[in-house]
Amino acid sequence: MENRPLDMLNAARDKRVVVELKNNKQFIGKLKAFDIHINIVLEDAEEREAGKITRKLGSVFIRGDTITIISPE
Amino acid sequence: MENRPLDMLNAARDKRVVVELKNNKQFIGKLKAFDIHINIVLEDAEEREAGKITRKLGSVFIRGDTITIISPE
Amino acid sequence: MENRPLDMLNAARDKRVVVELKNNKQFIGKLKAFDIHINIVLEDAEEREAGKITRKLGSVFIRGDTITIISPE
Amino acid sequence: MENRPLDMLNAARDKRVVVELKNNKQFIGKLKAFDIHINIVLEDAEEREAGKITRKLGSVFIRGDTITIISPE
Amino acid sequence: MENRPLDMLNAARDKRVVVELKNNKQFIGKLKAFDIHINIVLEDAEEREAGKITRKLGSVFIRGDTITIISPE
Amino acid sequence: MENRPLDMLNAARDKRVVVELKNNKQFIGKLKAFDIHINIVLEDAEEREAGKITRKLGSVFIRGDTITIISPE
Amino acid sequence: MENRPLDMLNAARDKRVVVELKNNKQFIGKLKAFDIHINIVLEDAEEREAGKITRKLGSVFIRGDTITIISPE
Repeated sequence: MENRPLDMLNAARDKRVVVELKNNKQFIGKLKAFDIHINIVLEDAEEREAGKITRKLGSVFIRGDTITIISPE
Repeated sequence: MENRPLDMLNAARDKRVVVELKNNKQFIGKLKAFDIHINIVLEDAEEREAGKITRKLGSVFIRGDTITIISPE
Repeated sequence: MENRPLDMLNAARDKRVVVELKNNKQFIGKLKAFDIHINIVLEDAEEREAGKITRKLGSVFIRGDTITIISPE
Repeated sequence: MENRPLDMLNAARDKRVVVELKNNKQFIGKLKAFDIHINIVLEDAEEREAGKITRKLGSVFIRGDTITIISPE
Repeated sequence: MENRPLDMLNAARDKRVVVELKNNKQFIGKLKAFDIHINIVLEDAEEREAGKITRKLGSVFIRGDTITIISPE
Repeated sequence: MENRPLDMLNAARDKRVVVELKNNKQFIGKLKAFDIHINIVLEDAEEREAGKITRKLGSVFIRGDTITIISPE
Repeated sequence: MENRPLDMLNAARDKRVVVELKNNKQFIGKLKAFDIHINIVLEDAEEREAGKITRKLGSVFIRGDTITIISPE
């Protein structure tokens, strides 16, 4: 039973998620950590722009205020 | 009797809503969760741009500060 | 006697108001609820762009930080 | 003796002021109310763009974070 | 001995300062008041754009979050 | 075991990281310090734009609210 | 030993630093004061755009939220 938005992020922990930013970049990776500011850490991450992989990143910290949506892959 | 804006969101829980973002994207889905920052979780969601479905998403977390309006479908 | 800005919104409750957003859209409807963040709920709302009705919405939640002005119709 | 910026707004109460917004619109009207967020209520207001009156509004609530300057007319 | 940024504003009180905004406008006038949000009141102010005086204003309240720099003339 | 986003930054202390800004600049350097606002200090830093080194900086303070992502190199 | 970002600013006090703004302007001067909002005061400052000195300023207050980076010269 999810009642608060952060419960959904909690359920996605260690699963692959898509994170989209205000600058239209996407980061896809395993959700390792998040906080109430929606700061996010992904592992085994890749960056995509316009559907194409543009970069592979081991782990990446994404600042919450730059994020628009997060969705399990 | 709705007196506070969040009461309207509460009444829309488990119903389908349209969420519009500052970048003009729309997300339509079942409202599962929200908080005082207006962070939103939708289920059975789809993304629309310029009236066309551009993507289907199981569930999606939408960061509150990127939202302009929310309306029951 | 209005001394605080929210008193004006309170006096407009259940009356029709025009709400303008930073993206230049207008929403016109009956003011049902507001809070200190200036989050707004309108009923029997319509969206206008460049003076033309572009959409009818039963009720709509408008996030405060996207609003520029609110004026009784 | 003005020592705090809000004292100037207080002295302008019930006088006509020009309020300019980040989107370059001007609203001119009688200052009826303000708060610490610089939310403003004007009465007998008119909107001007590029020096021309574009609209007459009975009263108008202007959200503080959209304002750049306020000046007695 | 200035140790905090607001000490510099305090030392400039009643002196002429240039205030620059994010929209590239400049306001020059006598600094009458400021607060911790860097809201500013100038007296005997003029507005300049691209080096030219575009307007004379008796007094002007400038909202802090629109300001980039303040410098004694 | 990383559970909070700042743990990832803590693990990257004294290692080389890439910091990307909202204006699309990259700063690469040794992570010396960070705080809860995600203000960052890098040492032996270089600035890159469009993949090219555009500047060498001994140390650099980067304001948190301008940052989009941080990733170990 | 620098552990917090503000320690780096503290170490730069009375030294010349480059401050870059979101609008791409640079201010170079002696760092006289800063606070937790990263509001900055420089002395013997000059403004540079695209590498050229565009203005000399005795002292200048720079509002923190307009700053991207600060680096000792």
